Amino acid sequence: MRRELAAEWTTAEWFNSKPLTLAELRGRVVVLGAFQMLCPGCVSTSLPQLQRIHETFDPAEVAVIGLHTVFEHHGAMTAVALAAFLHEYRLTFPIGVDAPGGGDVPLTMARFGFRGTPSLALIDRAGYLRLHQFGHFPDLQLGADIQKMIQETGTLAPVGSGQPVGAGKSECSLDGGCS
Amino acid sequence: MRRELAAEWTTAEWFNSKPLTLAELRGRVVVLGAFQMLCPGCVSTSLPQLQRIHETFDPAEVAVIGLHTVFEHHGAMTAVALAAFLHEYRLTFPIGVDAPGGGDVPLTMARFGFRGTPSLALIDRAGYLRLHQFGHFPDLQLGADIQKMIQETGTLAPVGSGQPVGAGKSECSLDGGCS
Amino acid sequence: MRRELAAEWTTAEWFNSKPLTLAELRGRVVVLGAFQMLCPGCVSTSLPQLQRIHETFDPAEVAVIGLHTVFEHHGAMTAVALAAFLHEYRLTFPIGVDAPGGGDVPLTMARFGFRGTPSLALIDRAGYLRLHQFGHFPDLQLGADIQKMIQETGTLAPVGSGQPVGAGKSECSLDGGCS
Amino acid sequence: MRRELAAEWTTAEWFNSKPLTLAELRGRVVVLGAFQMLCPGCVSTSLPQLQRIHETFDPAEVAVIGLHTVFEHHGAMTAVALAAFLHEYRLTFPIGVDAPGGGDVPLTMARFGFRGTPSLALIDRAGYLRLHQFGHFPDLQLGADIQKMIQETGTLAPVGSGQPVGAGKSECSLDGGCS
Repeated sequence: MRRELAAEWTTAEWFNSKPLTLAELRGRVVVLGAFQMLCPGCVSTSLPQLQRIHETFDPAEVAVIGLHTVFEHHGAMTAVALAAFLHEYRLTFPIGVDAPGGGDVPLTMARFGFRGTPSLALIDRAGYLRLHQFGHFPDLQLGADIQKMIQETGTLAPVGSGQPVGAGKSECSLDGGCS
Repeated sequence: MRRELAAEWTTAEWFNSKPLTLAELRGRVVVLGAFQMLCPGCVSTSLPQLQRIHETFDPAEVAVIGLHTVFEHHGAMTAVALAAFLHEYRLTFPIGVDAPGGGDVPLTMARFGFRGTPSLALIDRAGYLRLHQFGHFPDLQLGADIQKMIQETGTLAPVGSGQPVGAGKSECSLDGGCS
Repeated sequence: MRRELAAEWTTAEWFNSKPLTLAELRGRVVVLGAFQMLCPGCVSTSLPQLQRIHETFDPAEVAVIGLHTVFEHHGAMTAVALAAFLHEYRLTFPIGVDAPGGGDVPLTMARFGFRGTPSLALIDRAGYLRLHQFGHFPDLQLGADIQKMIQETGTLAPVGSGQPVGAGKSECSLDGGCS
Repeated sequence: MRRELAAEWTTAEWFNSKPLTLAELRGRVVVLGAFQMLCPGCVSTSLPQLQRIHETFDPAEVAVIGLHTVFEHHGAMTAVALAAFLHEYRLTFPIGVDAPGGGDVPLTMARFGFRGTPSLALIDRAGYLRLHQFGHFPDLQLGADIQKMIQETGTLAPVGSGQPVGAGKSECSLDGGCS
């Protein structure tokens, strides 16, 4: 079973929240969704799913965090553009902007090893990274995985046994643009 | 918190399985979906959801049971018709046919107090009825509720805090036909 | 350009209408949709499309006719079952039941050479069969094709240049069951 | 019947095409779709519909033109952002950027009297504005309307008898932001 402390994120700016660190969310399950505002699969599928998670679970138990990991079209996906996007799409969970790295790929995206957008990471109450994966997950499995992590005390059961669905459809990958 | 032993079902016939009783499923979480094969909301939404649950969770933990609760058009929704329907829609979880009652409403449907189709009941490992409701439930909440019941040992947390969605859209109710 | 008089249909029974012949619809564009009530692709896609056509075009110009061409599960898709189905799915255009042939395939289905369900035939004001095809057609192309036939006077332009979409997905074919 | 020459558009920039004037499209049916790249209903519904029209009809008969009519979030929906958006969403029809007016509303949008996005205008072969409306139109009616205009010679039949659907859902209006 995967047993690796999740790295801290490095962000340039926050929307819908004061700046947050992963460290201060310790004790809660963290659902971290990496996206780009011009990634079609993020807009149609994964961002609405993150909003649903935000509205379904108790925020004292589960923190939903969006991470704007821009690795292409940097001039288009600016902070001003993201603010307008979040307003028009009525996304209300906290969203951090991944800090620029040396090249196209931003810092946290590189650190977590995300292969494109959307990507999802589940981090448990103790701060361990339990799942991180490129593509979409079905709500039913994800609801069960989150609940499993909410109820964990001492012993940890595996999560994320399900396969992502839709990987390769409307995602944007580091090595191939958007499909 | 609701704490009521679920009634046993009374069935006339089974598909995709040998005859099953609720009693013999004790120890497993039971997801019981009441439907009619000519209820549009059942066909488009709740039966595919039951199939997803059947494919997502370990059958040793969760038993998905369909219950064909015909309360109208009895001459149309016969066992022969149901067999063809299940074949064409590729539904593979166990499905019992609710036994005829005195009038239009079949026995188990009346016993559980289902108001129409689709209806959903969640029964815990100990045989207690934890939720029963008319309408659809979102996958995310349902996935979490099922997982919560899988992990229960001594103490029981409430389930089904979420509201059904889509009640009133394409359902068939006892007092008003299909909407 | 295809130039073949459409064969008359032979029906056992009608719903939503008195019995109709193709001959008496001469002068109107006829949209003939062959379906089975337990064909998933018919239920989800082609029957709603026929209903939309029925509601969009002037009935003095366009006659939408459903043809229940049962070639499998005959014991399930009876007239009683069809009546209940039409009621629950709120289909209001005229629907004829294709008359039994010698074997599984009904008479009109064989005569038109339909390969499965759903199939669509477009018959022009002069009674010529202008298109007949297995699978679904997109609304945009179909709307244009129907309008083209409405406006025809002397000279006939080709219709149906578009390819069916979705053939092979949820259709039921004579030689392979439902996909 | 409406009989009004369509106004010329005034644009600042073009994508997917050299600069085009309405005048030079005389002789073709023009489908003009006003949108904003951050208008949810445009992204999910009307832009895919414009792309379908572009792919369904002969370009010698029908010219599909997108018009980026930004009336809010000007700093977000820049030309650079639009270029990235068109690339990611694979929109390939000609798109002009409406020229800035004195205030928030751009020049052509004001001239046509569009109330928000998405809006649709149909302009006939002779240059007359036959329909202009806020909201979405169903494909079936729109396919028929376009075909009707393709076939017009001397006499003109009315188009656009259908009502827009979905107006009030995910559109962005001048007086109320996005719904």
